[in-house]
Amino acid sequence: MEDIAVRAGVSKQTVYKHFTDKQSLFADIVLSTTGDMEALVGLIADRLSTTSNPAKDLEYLAETFLNALMQPRVLRLRRLVISSADRFPEIATAWYEQGFERALGVLSSSFQALTDRQLLAVDDSAMAAEHFVGMLFWIPVNKAMFTGDDDYAATHKLAPVARSAARAFMSAYGVGGEEQRWGQSQSDGLKAP
Amino acid sequence: MEDIAVRAGVSKQTVYKHFTDKQSLFADIVLSTTGDMEALVGLIADRLSTTSNPAKDLEYLAETFLNALMQPRVLRLRRLVISSADRFPEIATAWYEQGFERALGVLSSSFQALTDRQLLAVDDSAMAAEHFVGMLFWIPVNKAMFTGDDDYAATHKLAPVARSAARAFMSAYGVGGEEQRWGQSQSDGLKAP
Repeated sequence: MEDIAVRAGVSKQTVYKHFTDKQSLFADIVLSTTGDMEALVGLIADRLSTTSNPAKDLEYLAETFLNALMQPRVLRLRRLVISSADRFPEIATAWYEQGFERALGVLSSSFQALTDRQLLAVDDSAMAAEHFVGMLFWIPVNKAMFTGDDDYAATHKLAPVARSAARAFMSAYGVGGEEQRWGQSQSDGLKAP
Repeated sequence: MEDIAVRAGVSKQTVYKHFTDKQSLFADIVLSTTGDMEALVGLIADRLSTTSNPAKDLEYLAETFLNALMQPRVLRLRRLVISSADRFPEIATAWYEQGFERALGVLSSSFQALTDRQLLAVDDSAMAAEHFVGMLFWIPVNKAMFTGDDDYAATHKLAPVARSAARAFMSAYGVGGEEQRWGQSQSDGLKAP
């Protein structure tokens, strides 16, 4: 608390006036960052509610999402929240729910709406949303978490990971049949160069 | 170091004889657990090298894998390793490489071999392996990490997550065409009840 008072240029008393204890200060810092998710969630909803080309828009969303999550600041906060989840489960849970779980919910609704419009063929939209983010995030986020390299994005290409996840998703859940199964067809327009 | 000497019923000197410092003791504890991955890696290789039914065997592997990773002991170690990755990046990196990265490599080789046998249609087997584990692990592992609930598996069903991941993988990378695209067809044998 003293360090924070010094950094903020106020008295320790002033810090305690705003935050009753260390835990409530920590909660405030952590949860203030979930607002960043708002913009992303809005982007998903906008982009997918009007799309006529889910394959293209999912690639775009995948890359945008992955870049956002792989910011050094976000990765450091993620490590901090995980580290303290056994001591402060309420804070870590709230961070997850207000951030990722909201984004998952919007993705899921969007996938259902696209299925209703016959642009996707999803039977369990919540599960499909989990698959989309899982294919996108598991490897790069883990690599950053376990190498301690919070600036992972500076030295690794994220675009191919995003593209590949979006394409595998379309292969699993698209309506196009064989021409969308890019694992098999070497000549279609979706194939990576 | 003193606590450990007491728990082990030896002198502090004896602990220091085996481990020069806290870091080497920590490294030894963490890295001794990657041996657990051996059995899983062997299982993948055995099961997929002889399979004639990748859909069925991938469901089995998915469930086995997910159960192994969601053990309370593994989740606690995972949190500890992530927490210390910025201070001890070598230990955390080695844990990741000797554990998950080895499993990923074996999965990738297996998917390539199955593609050669025309039982899968994978063009980038390393990426396909990442997609498989991503769909399987991202949500349950994160939920455990962020809720601090290391005994998550005791109160949540893992089998449906495993089954769904394996089926989405087959939809994306199988050779069966429409009948494997369980998101669309309500009547095939792979459909969940």
